[in-house]
Amino acid sequence: MIPEQMTAIAIEGGKGSASALHPVQIETPRPAAGQILIRVGAAGVNRPDLMQRQGFYPPPPGAPVTLGLEVAGEVAAVGEGAPRWAVGDKVTALLGGGGYAQYALVDARHALPIPKGLDLTQAAALPETIFTVFANVFEHGALQAAETFMVHGATSGIGVTAIQMAKAAGARVIATGRGAAKAEAALKLGADIAIDTTTEDFAEAAKAAGGVDVILDMVGGDYIAKDLDALNPDGRLVMIATQAGYKVEVNLLTIMQKRLVMTGSTLRPRSADEKARLAAAIEARVWPWIEAGLIRPIVDRTFPLIEAAQAHAHLEAGDHVGKVVLLA
Amino acid sequence: MIPEQMTAIAIEGGKGSASALHPVQIETPRPAAGQILIRVGAAGVNRPDLMQRQGFYPPPPGAPVTLGLEVAGEVAAVGEGAPRWAVGDKVTALLGGGGYAQYALVDARHALPIPKGLDLTQAAALPETIFTVFANVFEHGALQAAETFMVHGATSGIGVTAIQMAKAAGARVIATGRGAAKAEAALKLGADIAIDTTTEDFAEAAKAAGGVDVILDMVGGDYIAKDLDALNPDGRLVMIATQAGYKVEVNLLTIMQKRLVMTGSTLRPRSADEKARLAAAIEARVWPWIEAGLIRPIVDRTFPLIEAAQAHAHLEAGDHVGKVVLLA
Repeated sequence: MIPEQMTAIAIEGGKGSASALHPVQIETPRPAAGQILIRVGAAGVNRPDLMQRQGFYPPPPGAPVTLGLEVAGEVAAVGEGAPRWAVGDKVTALLGGGGYAQYALVDARHALPIPKGLDLTQAAALPETIFTVFANVFEHGALQAAETFMVHGATSGIGVTAIQMAKAAGARVIATGRGAAKAEAALKLGADIAIDTTTEDFAEAAKAAGGVDVILDMVGGDYIAKDLDALNPDGRLVMIATQAGYKVEVNLLTIMQKRLVMTGSTLRPRSADEKARLAAAIEARVWPWIEAGLIRPIVDRTFPLIEAAQAHAHLEAGDHVGKVVLLA
Repeated sequence: MIPEQMTAIAIEGGKGSASALHPVQIETPRPAAGQILIRVGAAGVNRPDLMQRQGFYPPPPGAPVTLGLEVAGEVAAVGEGAPRWAVGDKVTALLGGGGYAQYALVDARHALPIPKGLDLTQAAALPETIFTVFANVFEHGALQAAETFMVHGATSGIGVTAIQMAKAAGARVIATGRGAAKAEAALKLGADIAIDTTTEDFAEAAKAAGGVDVILDMVGGDYIAKDLDALNPDGRLVMIATQAGYKVEVNLLTIMQKRLVMTGSTLRPRSADEKARLAAAIEARVWPWIEAGLIRPIVDRTFPLIEAAQAHAHLEAGDHVGKVVLLA
C-alpha cells in the first residue's frame, strides 16, 4: 500500500545555510515505463547536495528538484519494461535527485542488488562514491594493478571509497588529509602512505615515495600544479570537484615533457544510458570486491530523514570519516 | 668507401641567430651494434632544430650535439644485430640528432624503407612530422574515423601532415592558419574547413561547424582556453609545442563538465624502444596511406646542406607551406 503523500526534504526560505532544509509533504511519485519506485530505508548525503542547496549545482533538466542522489530500500512498485525487479526486492540505486524522501523513483537500470552482508544503511553509502571513483579512477584514469594512486581528502566519502577500491585493484595507495587524525584514519583504511598536508608538502612527499601514476583530486586550486609535479611520466590527473578554486595555472611543458593527462568528469549530467553502462560495469567488477570484504562502506553517522539540516551541518563541519546517511 | 672525415653543420659563434650555423669537418661515425650508418641524401629541417640552435631545447643525454632529427639516404654500413638492412638499401629515419651531415648514425629500428614512388627529398620530409602526428593525434588523442579533428598552423610541416593523415583516417578536418593564403593552402591539402585566425575567432567558427573531438595544438598561450571551448564532450586536446607561451590559465569546470582530456608529448626524449614501437606501428598503418597517395610529402623548398643557416632563416620567416629540406 503506497500512500498518496510522502515526506520529502525541500529547500525553503531561500538557498544558503543548512537550516533552509525542511520536511514537506508532497505527492508520492509513480513509476513510468523503465522505472521502479523504491521505498527508501536510507539515503546518502553527498557534497553535491550541499552545493545544490547553496544554489551552485542546479539539477539537470528533468531531475527532481528535491535533494538526494542515492538510496537503499525495497522495491515498492515496478513500471513496465523493468523485468529485473519485483516488489519487495532490496536494492541500492543512483538517482538524478529526490533521494531525501520516503519514496524515490529511479531508472530500473540504475538500481543494483544489495551486496551480500550489507544492511540498508551501508548500502545507501555506496552508489554515489563508487560510481564516481569507478568512472574517474578506473575508466578516465585507467588505474592499473601495481601502479601508484593518490587521493586527496582521504576521509571524505570519496576518499574512503577510493582508498579501498584502489587497494582492491592491486594498486599502491597514497592518501592525503588535513591533520594527523585524518592521516591515521587513511592508514587504517588500507592506504600504504598517508600525508598530513598541514605539516608536509604532498608533492615532495609523493615524489620521495617514488611518484604517482593516477591522482583523484576534488580540491583544485593550488593543488593542481603540485599534482602535475607529483605525477610520473604518463601519469593521469582526474578532477571531480574544485573546492579550492576552478581557475588554475597550468604549465604545458610539464604536461608535454611527462606526457601527462589532465581530465575530469561529473557524474550527475551523464545520460541515463551512460549511467546504466556504468552500473553494469560496477556490478561486474566492484560488487565482488564488496562481497569479498575488500571494500567496506564507511558510515560516519546517521540522522533521521527529517534532520537533513543537521546532517548537512555535520558534513560541512568537516570532521567526518566516511559517509553521512539519512534514515527514513 | 666511407671517408674518415665528413661535413656536418655545427653551431658556432654562440647560440642565437641562424647565422651561427656553419659547416665543419668532423670524424665520420661508425655504427655500433644495433645501428646503421646512413649516407645522407636529404635532411629535414624542423622547428625543434631552431629551438636547439637558440639554446632552448638541449639534446637529450647521448644524442649528437649537431643538429638534425631526420634524414633519407642510402645505408653505408651496418652494425651487428641489425639484420633488416644491407649496404645500399634506401631508408628514411628518425634520429636523436646529427642529421645535418653527410653521414648519420641511427638505431636500425628507427629506419624505415622509402615508400614506393618517393624520392629522397620527399622521404626526408616524413619521419619527424609523421611520428609526431601519429603519436599525438592517433595514440594520445585517439582520433577515430567520423570524428572532427582540428589542427593549428595548417601550413607548417606538422600541419600539412596532420591534415592529410586525419583525412586518410576518415576524420573531418578543420585547419587554422594566419591569413587567407594559409587557409587556402589548407583547403587544397584536403581540410574540410579552413579558418583564417586573423579575421575569425577559431573557437566560435569551430563550434558553429559542430565542434571538435581532437585538437593538435603547437601554439599554447591564449589558444588553450579557446581550444577547450571548441571541444565537444569527451574531446581531447593534445599539445606538442607552446609557441605563444607555456603558462596558461585553465578552467577545471570546463574540463569536468565536458569530460575533456588535456595531454601532450614531445618526441625526442622518448626511449629508443618506444621510438622503435612507434616506427613499427607507423610502417603498418601510415606507410600504406603514403603508397596509396593519400598522404603526399609537402616540400616547400630545398637548400644545400652548407646553407643550413639560410634554411633556418627561411623557416623563421614563416611563409613556408610544408617542409624545408637540406640536400647533401
